[in-house]
Amino acid sequence: MYDMIINNVHKQTPLVHCITNAVTMNDCANILLACGASPIMADDIREVEEITAICSALYLNIGTLNSQTVDAMMLAGKKSNELGHPIVFDPVGAGASSLRTSVTLELIENVKCSVIRGNVSEIKSITKGVGAATKGVDVGQEDIVTENEIADTVILAQDLSKRTGAVIAVTGEIDIVADSQSAYTIRNGHVLMKKVTGTGCMLTAIIAAFCGANPNQLLNATATAVCAMDICGELAYKKMLDNCAGTSSFRNYIIDEMSNISPSTLSKYAKLANE
Amino acid sequence: MYDMIINNVHKQTPLVHCITNAVTMNDCANILLACGASPIMADDIREVEEITAICSALYLNIGTLNSQTVDAMMLAGKKSNELGHPIVFDPVGAGASSLRTSVTLELIENVKCSVIRGNVSEIKSITKGVGAATKGVDVGQEDIVTENEIADTVILAQDLSKRTGAVIAVTGEIDIVADSQSAYTIRNGHVLMKKVTGTGCMLTAIIAAFCGANPNQLLNATATAVCAMDICGELAYKKMLDNCAGTSSFRNYIIDEMSNISPSTLSKYAKLANE
Amino acid sequence: MYDMIINNVHKQTPLVHCITNAVTMNDCANILLACGASPIMADDIREVEEITAICSALYLNIGTLNSQTVDAMMLAGKKSNELGHPIVFDPVGAGASSLRTSVTLELIENVKCSVIRGNVSEIKSITKGVGAATKGVDVGQEDIVTENEIADTVILAQDLSKRTGAVIAVTGEIDIVADSQSAYTIRNGHVLMKKVTGTGCMLTAIIAAFCGANPNQLLNATATAVCAMDICGELAYKKMLDNCAGTSSFRNYIIDEMSNISPSTLSKYAKLANE
Repeated sequence: MYDMIINNVHKQTPLVHCITNAVTMNDCANILLACGASPIMADDIREVEEITAICSALYLNIGTLNSQTVDAMMLAGKKSNELGHPIVFDPVGAGASSLRTSVTLELIENVKCSVIRGNVSEIKSITKGVGAATKGVDVGQEDIVTENEIADTVILAQDLSKRTGAVIAVTGEIDIVADSQSAYTIRNGHVLMKKVTGTGCMLTAIIAAFCGANPNQLLNATATAVCAMDICGELAYKKMLDNCAGTSSFRNYIIDEMSNISPSTLSKYAKLANE
Repeated sequence: MYDMIINNVHKQTPLVHCITNAVTMNDCANILLACGASPIMADDIREVEEITAICSALYLNIGTLNSQTVDAMMLAGKKSNELGHPIVFDPVGAGASSLRTSVTLELIENVKCSVIRGNVSEIKSITKGVGAATKGVDVGQEDIVTENEIADTVILAQDLSKRTGAVIAVTGEIDIVADSQSAYTIRNGHVLMKKVTGTGCMLTAIIAAFCGANPNQLLNATATAVCAMDICGELAYKKMLDNCAGTSSFRNYIIDEMSNISPSTLSKYAKLANE
Repeated sequence: MYDMIINNVHKQTPLVHCITNAVTMNDCANILLACGASPIMADDIREVEEITAICSALYLNIGTLNSQTVDAMMLAGKKSNELGHPIVFDPVGAGASSLRTSVTLELIENVKCSVIRGNVSEIKSITKGVGAATKGVDVGQEDIVTENEIADTVILAQDLSKRTGAVIAVTGEIDIVADSQSAYTIRNGHVLMKKVTGTGCMLTAIIAAFCGANPNQLLNATATAVCAMDICGELAYKKMLDNCAGTSSFRNYIIDEMSNISPSTLSKYAKLANE
């Protein structure tokens, strides 16, 4: 499947409308370019509908939300729904403040998302509507997914998928990508990716690009994006060790790897399984 | 000419007031420092006039415009005009939304710009007032300048220069820098620069720095800045290949090269011609 | 002292609430992760109190202030004071505009800061309430601290410490960290750090992390953070030369070094003295 998903990205250069946080905007733009897509950031309510109309996908991220950007997300989201564009949503820090939780729930209620990606704490806080163990923007210690929690997390994801119609990507040590019918586990990536800001945001951006170029293959496009990002993390980690470098170089190497990744690299390294 | 232009930057450390987009702000600040200038970002209307008054040049960029930053641009622009400071304008995405096109036209009408830099689609959308083939923030496929389009693009640039009094830099595969009287073509740079967000923004920032230190040499300062950025791209590309790296390292190498560039490097590599 | 301060950071992974400028937000987030802390950026007034309540420290920086972020700083600051969390304040560009000076004075009046870090010009502009020689966001030429100015600068810092109750860090060629009783000088760092945007902001972020994990050791935590940042600069400079690189790689190497720094590296290289 990797071939088709990635070749479509390369052939179409999908334009991705990003309404995202100020912290990792630059990284998201660069990794979108690296994977073969093209980013446009626009969050003025006077232009978001027009901008989203010329794009192939919409990427929403509440990492540094404010009233202006939330209004822009709603408007762009409704327009994208109208046009049938994939919308990929990253509920950064849902559960960490009541504002983030309520904005997340409001967005999901008013905008039909194609994919929602978060860590377990964020996804739980959507499911419960309230207070999972989110620690700031990181997963809560008690929410980390190891082998024992896979079955429960798949149920969590599939429940949310049934409620929202979205593909759910729960990422962490083991990643789960599920829709209401089926689920993948992905055992790639490296724990040091948590020490770089925006690896989650960048992944969600890549999902938006892959879905934009593969709108009828949302589950596989999402799973492929997760594998790609994780494998870039693994390869970048090796390069970091080889160069006696640290976490900033690691960030650069991740994006470097994304700019060089091929379907055959994915086939070689991906540890994707049906659940 | 490179010697004088660059030595003036190094001698004066021009302070550049930037009202620019959130995506590439950090890159613009770093490349300004790298080239020997000093950046200050300020977009609160309560301080922009005071800030711009202590600077040598003003850099305006609408990449992530909103009503607050547009008001700030107008105020700072008028103040800079009053003080006779060079203003360098980057109409990012003009043509991609009616908001961007109208803000661009409003800015040009109310603020006398010293230099306007954009890709062909952006420059066309200013000339026409409407709808060139801009694809998001990238040049439209049908607008790419190759050898056959040079003569027409020079006319386009010189027409806009006559209307606005600004030096016009139309950048792309072949770059054109023109005022109403004369025109340069520059055949430097590398196509991979399009795969790094902000190479256009960074170039415009550099133009502002070079013009700030050479206010009576706007055409030559602009042409030198374009050559410098393009040559940094060429040298960075070689380093990227040598290091088996990718686009994120490429971005870093471009800024690295700018921090090390000398007039003699420019003389050696520049492919500048009078048109 | 380095051992205890740094080990506490590593043991506690302090969550640092950052209300900071848009230019260097990403660098601040990455260096916080690199040093063993965890960042959360949030500046919507509807959530800042709740966010700051789950954190260990608050980092305030007015580098790109606007009315919204200043309101957020006030609210978060008062809440942090209520909860007894350390607040670390970076008055970027105080003195460069009357807005920045007045916001700085207003913040200090309404919020009890634990640490204030700035260059001499910024610190002087607080002390005088007006107009030191700040040049934009850089130190004024006449304000650079060399051996001859140490005694005067220690007095400056201690006066401000007496007035505010805060530890004062005056950074530059020679750094001074003082409270009302005692003072350190630190003779580490490299002059090229001025050619990277955000080295000051990143240092202040690190101070917030170190104070968050060592709330009863504010002076030593601040001094340790200054030593750590400076030594990372020195080691990064060597790496930059070894790799024939430039200022962008230098920025990455600084963060890389922070992700690898150990108490023994500090003990080996720190040039810390009691004044």
